[in-house]
Amino acid sequence: METRENFENEEQNLQSNQIEGRNAVLEAFRAGKTIDKVFILDGSQDGPIRSIVRTARKSDAIINFVKKERLDQLSQTGHHQGVIAMAAAYHYAEVEDILAAAKAKNEDPFIILLDDIEDPHNLGAIIRTANLAGAHGVIIPKRHAAGLTPTVAKASAGALNYTPVAKVTNLTRTMEELKKQGMWFVCAAMDGDVMYDCNLTGSIGLVIGNEGDGVSRLVREQCDFTASIPMKGDIDSLNASVACGVLSYEIVRQRMKKG
Amino acid sequence: METRENFENEEQNLQSNQIEGRNAVLEAFRAGKTIDKVFILDGSQDGPIRSIVRTARKSDAIINFVKKERLDQLSQTGHHQGVIAMAAAYHYAEVEDILAAAKAKNEDPFIILLDDIEDPHNLGAIIRTANLAGAHGVIIPKRHAAGLTPTVAKASAGALNYTPVAKVTNLTRTMEELKKQGMWFVCAAMDGDVMYDCNLTGSIGLVIGNEGDGVSRLVREQCDFTASIPMKGDIDSLNASVACGVLSYEIVRQRMKKG
Repeated sequence: METRENFENEEQNLQSNQIEGRNAVLEAFRAGKTIDKVFILDGSQDGPIRSIVRTARKSDAIINFVKKERLDQLSQTGHHQGVIAMAAAYHYAEVEDILAAAKAKNEDPFIILLDDIEDPHNLGAIIRTANLAGAHGVIIPKRHAAGLTPTVAKASAGALNYTPVAKVTNLTRTMEELKKQGMWFVCAAMDGDVMYDCNLTGSIGLVIGNEGDGVSRLVREQCDFTASIPMKGDIDSLNASVACGVLSYEIVRQRMKKG
Repeated sequence: METRENFENEEQNLQSNQIEGRNAVLEAFRAGKTIDKVFILDGSQDGPIRSIVRTARKSDAIINFVKKERLDQLSQTGHHQGVIAMAAAYHYAEVEDILAAAKAKNEDPFIILLDDIEDPHNLGAIIRTANLAGAHGVIIPKRHAAGLTPTVAKASAGALNYTPVAKVTNLTRTMEELKKQGMWFVCAAMDGDVMYDCNLTGSIGLVIGNEGDGVSRLVREQCDFTASIPMKGDIDSLNASVACGVLSYEIVRQRMKKG
C-alpha cells in the first residue's frame, strides 16, 4: 500500500503551485488564492510569520509546523524563509453550487463524496468518472485527503474544468445537512446488499472510502444503506477509482431504466 | 497525457528486477528468467554482447539498441558494461492456461485483452478488476505496452498472484485463434450500442484500448461488436482502468442475471 509520504513526494515533483517565502505567501493569501496547506518553520515567532499564521487560520488552509530539514526538502527555490504554501490548482466550489447544478439540469442530485482519497491519480480519475456518469459534483474533506493539485487536474483529463469539487471541514456534518434536503447516501461495503438489488435512483450521494481503510465508521453511520459490488476473486477490494466507476454506472443504469 | 517516457522513468524508480552487466544478463537468460526488455549499447560487437543478442532474439525479449547516455541514465549500479535487462516481476502464463482456468471452474471463458495499456498503474488496477470480476485471465501484447513490473504487481494489490496474465506477439492473431474456439470479442467505443443492450454473456473477450488512442483499427476489426458506456459529461473518455471496471461489471451483471 502506498503511504501518504509517497503521495506527498509525488505531488512535490509535479507541484507547480508551490509558493515560497514570506512576502510571496502573504501576497497569495491577500490575492484570495486558495491555499490548501502551509508549511511553517516550527518555533518561528517573528512578525511576518505570525501574520501568515493568523491569515492561514482565517482561511481554510491546513497549517503544518515543521522542522527546517522538511522545508529544505520541500523547497524548489532554496529560499523558503521559513514558509512554503501549496496553492490549489483549481478553485473549490461550494456544496450549494453542486445542488444548483442539479437543479439547473432539472435532475435529482447525484453527488460523489470521498472519505479520504489520498492518491491524486485516484482523485483525478474519480472526477473524470463523475463528469461522464453525470454526477453533479464531488465533495472531499479538508483534512487527510488529496486536494486539487496539478496531478489531480491532469488525471481528471479536463473534467475539473466542468465538474465542481467542494471541500468541506466535516463530511458527516455535510451529509446530515444534505439529508435534510432529501438526499440519500449509499456507501460500498462487502457486507451490503448486492448493488443490482439496491434502489439507487432519486437524490443520491455515493460515498467512496479511503484506499486502505475504506469508509470510516462515523461516515458509514450516516449512510442510509450499503451496497456491495459482487466479488468473485481472491483479493479484497477493487481500486478506489474503479469501485467508484462501477457503482456510479450502476446508478446510471438504474436512472436510465427509470427515466 | 502521459508519455511513454514518463512511465519508463517511473518504472525505473521502482524497478527492482533490473539486471546489469554482461555475465549477469546472460546468466538470467540461462536461468530461464522472463526478460521483458534488453537495452544494449548501440554498435557493440564483442562476443558476450553478440551472445546476449542471440539469446534475447530466441526469447520473447524486446531488444533496444541505445546510446551510452541512455544506459548510464538507466543504470542503478553504474556498471552496466553496455547491457541492462529488465526482468518480469512475475511469470507470464500461456493463453491455454487461461482457457484451462475457465474450464476447471466449469465457466464460459471471460478474458480481458489489453490493446497497448501503457500506464503500469492502469495495468495493475485492471488485473485487480479481472480477479474480482471473475475474469479467467488477462492478455497483453508484447510490444508497446506495460509488462509485469513491480509497479504493476503493487497496483494489482496481490491479484497478480491469482490471475494469469499472458503476453502475446500479435493480439489480432490470438483473437482469431480464440474465435475458432468459440469466443466472442467486444470492445468499447463511443459509437457502439449502449452496453446495457448488448448481450455480453457466453464466452467473451473484453478488449480495452490504449489510454490515448483507444482500440487500434486492426484489433477493432476482429471484434464481433462494440459496446458503448453512456457518456453524460463534457469530456471524451473514462480512465482506461475505470472503463474496464465498468464494462467488466456489466458482464458480471448479465452473467448473474442469466445464471
